[in-house]
Amino acid sequence: MIKQLKPSALSAQIEDMVEWLASYGLEQSGGVTRLLYDQAWSSAQKAIQAKIEQLGLTACYDDVGNLFGRLAGKDPEAKVILTGSHIDTVTGGGKYDGAFGIVASLLAVEYLLTHHGQPLKPIEIVSLCEEEGSRFPMTYWGSGNITGVKDRDTIHNVKDANGISLEQAMRDAGFGSGLHSPPKRTDLECFIELHIEQGEVLERKGKSIGIVSHIVGQRRYNITVYGESNHAGTTPMQWRQDAMFTAAEMIRLLTHRAKADMSGLVATVGHMEVKPNVGNVIAREVTFSLDVRHSDAGTIEQFCETCFREFETIAAEHGTRLMYHKWMDEPPVAMDHTLNEAAEDILRREGISYKRMTSGAGHDSQIFGTYCPTALLFVPSRGGISHSPAEFTHTEDLQRGVLLLIDLLYKLAY
Amino acid sequence: MIKQLKPSALSAQIEDMVEWLASYGLEQSGGVTRLLYDQAWSSAQKAIQAKIEQLGLTACYDDVGNLFGRLAGKDPEAKVILTGSHIDTVTGGGKYDGAFGIVASLLAVEYLLTHHGQPLKPIEIVSLCEEEGSRFPMTYWGSGNITGVKDRDTIHNVKDANGISLEQAMRDAGFGSGLHSPPKRTDLECFIELHIEQGEVLERKGKSIGIVSHIVGQRRYNITVYGESNHAGTTPMQWRQDAMFTAAEMIRLLTHRAKADMSGLVATVGHMEVKPNVGNVIAREVTFSLDVRHSDAGTIEQFCETCFREFETIAAEHGTRLMYHKWMDEPPVAMDHTLNEAAEDILRREGISYKRMTSGAGHDSQIFGTYCPTALLFVPSRGGISHSPAEFTHTEDLQRGVLLLIDLLYKLAY
Repeated sequence: MIKQLKPSALSAQIEDMVEWLASYGLEQSGGVTRLLYDQAWSSAQKAIQAKIEQLGLTACYDDVGNLFGRLAGKDPEAKVILTGSHIDTVTGGGKYDGAFGIVASLLAVEYLLTHHGQPLKPIEIVSLCEEEGSRFPMTYWGSGNITGVKDRDTIHNVKDANGISLEQAMRDAGFGSGLHSPPKRTDLECFIELHIEQGEVLERKGKSIGIVSHIVGQRRYNITVYGESNHAGTTPMQWRQDAMFTAAEMIRLLTHRAKADMSGLVATVGHMEVKPNVGNVIAREVTFSLDVRHSDAGTIEQFCETCFREFETIAAEHGTRLMYHKWMDEPPVAMDHTLNEAAEDILRREGISYKRMTSGAGHDSQIFGTYCPTALLFVPSRGGISHSPAEFTHTEDLQRGVLLLIDLLYKLAY
Repeated sequence: MIKQLKPSALSAQIEDMVEWLASYGLEQSGGVTRLLYDQAWSSAQKAIQAKIEQLGLTACYDDVGNLFGRLAGKDPEAKVILTGSHIDTVTGGGKYDGAFGIVASLLAVEYLLTHHGQPLKPIEIVSLCEEEGSRFPMTYWGSGNITGVKDRDTIHNVKDANGISLEQAMRDAGFGSGLHSPPKRTDLECFIELHIEQGEVLERKGKSIGIVSHIVGQRRYNITVYGESNHAGTTPMQWRQDAMFTAAEMIRLLTHRAKADMSGLVATVGHMEVKPNVGNVIAREVTFSLDVRHSDAGTIEQFCETCFREFETIAAEHGTRLMYHKWMDEPPVAMDHTLNEAAEDILRREGISYKRMTSGAGHDSQIFGTYCPTALLFVPSRGGISHSPAEFTHTEDLQRGVLLLIDLLYKLAY
């Protein structure tokens, strides 16, 4: 079916629309900043609203600011095929993260409406209000409200860096007053999200599309080693209770363990704080972060348990003490097998290279994935770079993503 | 000779004088702060000056503020036996660091003058103006001027945290104008410094006196590992160039190597800076300090060379790069063998327990040690604690230090 498209015309359209959406919040640096409910965010939603209406679809917001573009179906009983991504960005982010999923949805629905008319089942485009957690210390506000895992009761005391409450920001942007429909949806058949990979797997493997089997589970800890401060010159090596040395042993051990795991587990220590952090004083306290991810919750559990058992031995050997603070424990979320098979069929038929993979990063799809059948489909990120003005995906790959989305929506809705 | 003393009377005198000197700069917290040329420093020097004059000695300052108390000798040709320590402290320091050496010198000379009258050779007490580097980014200003390794030409642009230049601070305190004698001395026979250990060796070994054979050499580096920032979720373990993991391997390796050295080498990583230092981002840059000390320069050299060779291998394995910045390289300084033997004879004769040892910390004696025969003698520090209000030495140990100083000065000057 997608053979009917003129790829060159689609390429130009994709490029234009990526630039068009990036123009809302574009900065001198080339970065894009659209934070939940800010000016750039509002302008972008209004521009998408106009585009939706221009396509002849029905635009509507829900009461937290998610924007929908509805193409009604012939079957009045049919549930909604939902597709889209998030409109918010990190500060100084790229042009593709979230935005590409919205652009692709608009183009796909435009194509389907033009070439195939009204579908059997309703298709809705969604521009989700928030995913990144870049303004307020909270993520998935858009998808969380749609699926009912978040609501107004969960945001008491949530404030941005300027002390503005989420409630206030929402009202200032024209939402939260009950003028729009309540966000919780019970009429969804499935959700399909096209997104950039934000990793290097597809590029390195030379594949155009990633079909995500699972969004990995994540555990995050802060681990504190308590030793004893002493003079770096007058304290013999054998009498030290060196928190830095202990932490180095632990970081080395856990990273080697993660490297030895061949099932895709990743473990990262990206943050460290040392006290007193003075070159000629033995460290009395070191806190380091631990971020562990895998598609299987049991594997994460086992990895942490094994490491922590060995950490206790290391700490005892060094005369230091340990404290663990687990502050995140998100289970893995499986994407829908049937939707993935449908995507795979299309890609095989069209001769587009693809790879089944896990998503190491979180996405709105992990919220939808526990609520309705969900597919998360990736296009490559050049150099794996994201959350940066350098974020880039070749137009050919973007185009293959749009073609897949068109075909998948056709298969599901017509 | 020291049998003539009444130990109980001396104990009380020592305790009184420690408290008397600590009263200049004493804070609510119990800490003592006397920074070079500040109010508390000036008051302390004036109080010592009064005490010197009260003992019937001649007090005089040199032009940088070192204070001397001279007991003239019978031999007009004889060079000076100098003893003392520094009057300045760290911010919120203890009552013993530096101060005890001055108190002991005053008590020892008082005793000798009372019981033995005028010596053959002149004895001078010195209250050195600066050792700690706690106000200005510079150490050994007092001993450096006396021995000629520092002078006014070396302090251009040296300023304190408030932007006051060392030159200005010196003038405000009444020095640097040429009214006092030039600090450089060419008439010293030897220097004897009694000081607290600031380490735990004597306490753990149950010894009262430490006879220092060498003040260790020190090298200090900042070592930077350059990796690549990447997403902690989407970057498989085998593709990472993780600066934190690399640094952990290096810190572990160097610390194990130092522990395996049985000749007293110490190596410390007390400082670390991570970029971007975010838990879910692989570190692109880690800078850590390395502080290596030993009494033999060759051992330091060999340790660093071996470690750095292995660091290169580790960095290559991890796809990271390394940069070394050596910002301190002080050679070890030997104390005078003959003076040390004289001290040892006295201690053996008096039945006072002692230990030959190295000093892992720097002292004015390392400056004098390259200039004239020098002895550095330690008394124990409880728990090894120093630079803190908790700094403490038992009076019995202080008294043994004073007795040793009396006997040593007697042997040298009478």
